[in-house]
Amino acid sequence: MVAVAILAAGRGSRMKSQLPKVLHPLGGSSLVERVLSCAESVQPQRRLVIVGFGGEQVQQALSHLPAIEFVEQAQQLGTGHAIQQVMPYLQGFEGSLLVLNGDVPLLRSQTLMSLLQTHETHGNAATILTAQMPDPKGYGRVFCDGQNIVTQIVEDRDCTPAQRQNRRVNAGIYCFDWQALTQVLPTLQANNQQQEYYITDAVNFLSPVMAVDVEDHQEIFGINDRKQLATASQILQNRIKDDWMRAGVTLIDPDSITIDDAVQLAPDLVIEPQTHLRGQTKIGSGCRIGPGSLVENSQIGENVTLLYSVVSDSQVAANCRIGPYAHLRGDAEVGAGCRIGNFVELKQAQLGERTNVAHLSYLGDASLGNQVNVGAGTITANYDGVKKHRTQIGDRSKTGSNTVLVAPITIGQDVTIAAGSTLTEDVPDDCLVVARARQVVKPGWRLKPIE
Amino acid sequence: MVAVAILAAGRGSRMKSQLPKVLHPLGGSSLVERVLSCAESVQPQRRLVIVGFGGEQVQQALSHLPAIEFVEQAQQLGTGHAIQQVMPYLQGFEGSLLVLNGDVPLLRSQTLMSLLQTHETHGNAATILTAQMPDPKGYGRVFCDGQNIVTQIVEDRDCTPAQRQNRRVNAGIYCFDWQALTQVLPTLQANNQQQEYYITDAVNFLSPVMAVDVEDHQEIFGINDRKQLATASQILQNRIKDDWMRAGVTLIDPDSITIDDAVQLAPDLVIEPQTHLRGQTKIGSGCRIGPGSLVENSQIGENVTLLYSVVSDSQVAANCRIGPYAHLRGDAEVGAGCRIGNFVELKQAQLGERTNVAHLSYLGDASLGNQVNVGAGTITANYDGVKKHRTQIGDRSKTGSNTVLVAPITIGQDVTIAAGSTLTEDVPDDCLVVARARQVVKPGWRLKPIE
Amino acid sequence: MVAVAILAAGRGSRMKSQLPKVLHPLGGSSLVERVLSCAESVQPQRRLVIVGFGGEQVQQALSHLPAIEFVEQAQQLGTGHAIQQVMPYLQGFEGSLLVLNGDVPLLRSQTLMSLLQTHETHGNAATILTAQMPDPKGYGRVFCDGQNIVTQIVEDRDCTPAQRQNRRVNAGIYCFDWQALTQVLPTLQANNQQQEYYITDAVNFLSPVMAVDVEDHQEIFGINDRKQLATASQILQNRIKDDWMRAGVTLIDPDSITIDDAVQLAPDLVIEPQTHLRGQTKIGSGCRIGPGSLVENSQIGENVTLLYSVVSDSQVAANCRIGPYAHLRGDAEVGAGCRIGNFVELKQAQLGERTNVAHLSYLGDASLGNQVNVGAGTITANYDGVKKHRTQIGDRSKTGSNTVLVAPITIGQDVTIAAGSTLTEDVPDDCLVVARARQVVKPGWRLKPIE
Repeated sequence: MVAVAILAAGRGSRMKSQLPKVLHPLGGSSLVERVLSCAESVQPQRRLVIVGFGGEQVQQALSHLPAIEFVEQAQQLGTGHAIQQVMPYLQGFEGSLLVLNGDVPLLRSQTLMSLLQTHETHGNAATILTAQMPDPKGYGRVFCDGQNIVTQIVEDRDCTPAQRQNRRVNAGIYCFDWQALTQVLPTLQANNQQQEYYITDAVNFLSPVMAVDVEDHQEIFGINDRKQLATASQILQNRIKDDWMRAGVTLIDPDSITIDDAVQLAPDLVIEPQTHLRGQTKIGSGCRIGPGSLVENSQIGENVTLLYSVVSDSQVAANCRIGPYAHLRGDAEVGAGCRIGNFVELKQAQLGERTNVAHLSYLGDASLGNQVNVGAGTITANYDGVKKHRTQIGDRSKTGSNTVLVAPITIGQDVTIAAGSTLTEDVPDDCLVVARARQVVKPGWRLKPIE
Repeated sequence: MVAVAILAAGRGSRMKSQLPKVLHPLGGSSLVERVLSCAESVQPQRRLVIVGFGGEQVQQALSHLPAIEFVEQAQQLGTGHAIQQVMPYLQGFEGSLLVLNGDVPLLRSQTLMSLLQTHETHGNAATILTAQMPDPKGYGRVFCDGQNIVTQIVEDRDCTPAQRQNRRVNAGIYCFDWQALTQVLPTLQANNQQQEYYITDAVNFLSPVMAVDVEDHQEIFGINDRKQLATASQILQNRIKDDWMRAGVTLIDPDSITIDDAVQLAPDLVIEPQTHLRGQTKIGSGCRIGPGSLVENSQIGENVTLLYSVVSDSQVAANCRIGPYAHLRGDAEVGAGCRIGNFVELKQAQLGERTNVAHLSYLGDASLGNQVNVGAGTITANYDGVKKHRTQIGDRSKTGSNTVLVAPITIGQDVTIAAGSTLTEDVPDDCLVVARARQVVKPGWRLKPIE
Repeated sequence: MVAVAILAAGRGSRMKSQLPKVLHPLGGSSLVERVLSCAESVQPQRRLVIVGFGGEQVQQALSHLPAIEFVEQAQQLGTGHAIQQVMPYLQGFEGSLLVLNGDVPLLRSQTLMSLLQTHETHGNAATILTAQMPDPKGYGRVFCDGQNIVTQIVEDRDCTPAQRQNRRVNAGIYCFDWQALTQVLPTLQANNQQQEYYITDAVNFLSPVMAVDVEDHQEIFGINDRKQLATASQILQNRIKDDWMRAGVTLIDPDSITIDDAVQLAPDLVIEPQTHLRGQTKIGSGCRIGPGSLVENSQIGENVTLLYSVVSDSQVAANCRIGPYAHLRGDAEVGAGCRIGNFVELKQAQLGERTNVAHLSYLGDASLGNQVNVGAGTITANYDGVKKHRTQIGDRSKTGSNTVLVAPITIGQDVTIAAGSTLTEDVPDDCLVVARARQVVKPGWRLKPIE
């Protein structure tokens, strides 16, 4: 049996924020959600989130996640005090308790699994996560014997110069035998300068305690201010982007690109600079995305080019060319082989195959067939001031430049709409339709310059 | 009494520019303006800018600043020669002379204040600014005794290997007792390889001379070419962005963002990648700005989202959603709760509250009331080829798609304009107005393919 | 006589690509094209590209280059085996053979010239390129005597700890005396763990062999995966951008900018962040390009500002202001002093001088004279569903807002087109032309809210 307790009660005053620190987003999820997601790797039976500052906000933000127990730590009197609050919840629980930090969001699943496995294999009373830090300043140092048994944990400020040379630091992440821990938790004292109860004091009373080094010290990077949030974001992005490059995705200027965790990319895909892929996005092989594009919660088929465009909540089939300066949103669905050109907005629009919307158009709440040609400046007037209405255009029809289609309206197949027409009535198949005034020329007319 | 002399006579030939080096811009101001601005921290009675190459250009560029005296250094014969030119201007002056470099723009105010304070407190003849350089190569080394009294300044090329180990370098920034300096200035010799008069020689003749270390060696970074200009820009940007992150602003990918010094940001504000904030710009709490946006000399209220847009010389009130691909310029004023969508340009346009301009529109020289709905493709024809005219639209009115409003024109309140209408005359309140041709359908018509 | 052999037979499986590794693009050319281009510096009489995996693709990709001989290496049995395949092609050849790697694309011309010169001056049997690597791990170490004669090459895995201290590594780039090499090539053995024939074994049998250090160890950077491809791209970009900065171009945030090798820039030009210059592009002095712009195969005159725009295959004369959100493509030609504003697309359009297209327009297949004013929302209806037709507009003419010009059509000089007009017939000089319906007002009309 495994329980996980996540310390999430701190204010994080250096964030200078109305939002509790653990709710700050990092690449699509909040800090505490990342920690919870990592904790799932050990399949915990219990998930306890210890809340304090902004506790209601935290509870609400996590309300979509199942099976979380919220433990209130009304006053923040240290890590040991936080775990003491857990005792009433874990009455009679037997097994391991993992103690994680809600502001340490870069921990990897395999690290947690390895910590737990070492703990259980050796039957330790406690196992602590350690890291070899290039610059260990400020961290507690962990001293072990030849069997990796922890002999001493010394706070940075209490280190002798010799002890300070030790770069193995306490990550603040622990695995406890719950039964053993419950024996010592009530005995913790706050007789230190901060007058706080420290969980490390509990560690000192347990035996045997073992240490497990994290593979990559960046995993234990904690967040206390926005600068550290930016650094964490960069570390996370480098991980994600390195993974995709290894998987066969070409990134041109990777530093300028951001990719959320949930994004799925096919190999032989090129991401150009300054491109951002977010949410549940999936992009097929042979695509060239960017520069300067944002794709959010959208699926893009193979061999699509997307240049300086924004695509959100939409689907684009294979072999389309999109942009520059196109905007697809609100469940736009673009069929294979379409061309969506500059200054075109699609919203709740379904396009068949090989349909072109090349310039300066707005198609909202519209269904277009195959091989439709939408002239420059075509607009679906989908809103009558009260409700939205739909426009339908049949296969192979062609709208002239500056056509307005006042919805609800249905245009048949093989229809040609003359340029400059505003249509308010349905048009059957195979028609030419015109709605414009005659051209009147007044000769000998000149602009008067300002006198 | 404090006088400041700024060396700004050099050509800066490695800049490869028609512009004198000190006039190259760095984050919104020129190099020499930055030095002048820093010098204000010591409240100088006299501000002398020593000009030579492109002197007229420099004088003109600084003509908007009050109380600057320009000192001509016709030939550039070294730093000592430059300060010699100051002598006629400071006849009878008593007090301290700060000597600054017009191409060292990253000096902080507190550094200058600390230099002056040390100088005055100790009654030094001269006080020189020094820095501890990680790589001191090329710099003159400064040797001090236990009381921080300068015993020797040795040029890099004259250093023994042992002396080269000293990383304390001469920043080229000095505070002199003017009376003491005037005694030695006329005695400077140019008997060196470059045949130049060096101000360091003056230092050698003065006593006591003290050294003050700059906090951060990047402050004395000098600019000789465009690569160094780019480096200085990065240092400056890192300073500004670190300050804003500490103040509670989230920057996503800070390296891709630029923020001018004068910009003011509220906490709990998110700046997305590739966003540039320039000039007198102010942005409120809760906003999300970017990616890919430029905001220049504009004020943006709280909780505004701005996506891939350009806003210059404009005001946006709270709770607006702007972009992608919107362009606000020329004193656009957008009321609270407005939606400005894609491919929309506002120029000299005032919008009331909760007014929507969602797609493909140009509003120039226009005043719109509250809750106006501007249809896609609406254009104010504000220019008759000779003059600009104004358009007015009353509260709750609605323009149809592809409406043209030929200014001067006034549309009342609660007016509905039919799609495709071009209006040339005023419309009173509570009207429906139509200006379009009837729809004519010619059945059995098909496009002839190319034979 | 010089021959060049380029190893280009490997699959590069870590690229995870359908494309042979040497065909991956790097800043506008493929890896192998870069190596071939570098090789031209030694004016080779013979150019042999050794192909294997994807050999036909490689041959096709290089088919536009003259005088390349393709040598098939059906099985990839090592570098020595690859050069063995060259023997039938160089029967009777006398002179030097340069052996290059198709996946080492950053080698400089002067490095190759210096290698060849050392080789020929000293009459070496072989000369090998070496580099001083900060981190030599994984590379073979090269040991030389006081005369720079190679005494030993030891693979990394065979190094003693002492040998591992040597940071002089084998770059895998060689110059051979072909006659000498042909003596030893047939004797190569594959009695090693990989069962491959190594060209270094040939080196061991030749004498004298000399080593030449590359100036910058980054030149020998080889590409095996997409991460290394990204690193190579960054190295290449830094080279190009440093060169332009030294030449007097201001780059604001250089890291965010990409510039292809073939681009030509004038001094006193400012490139703003997130700007990409590609292909045969040339930009004049005094321009400000970006932020957020892409210029491809285009020529831009002096003093042009280009903001958030895409320009491809086009020409822009001096003193134009372009953008934001403009798109010039397909041989657009813009005369001096024009203003191309937001949401404007030009395709196959020629504009005279001081012509304005300020907002929301599409000009395709059009010729405009001087001082034309194109109203917002003007569209050339250039496509009748079958063919494209041309639009012509004479000097000083003015199109009203939302004008549609149905091509083929010719508008004379000094013509004024009323707003909202769709024109289908030619208009002579000095006319006012109107094609719109009358404005009809229905008073007392109000939108019905949803009941």
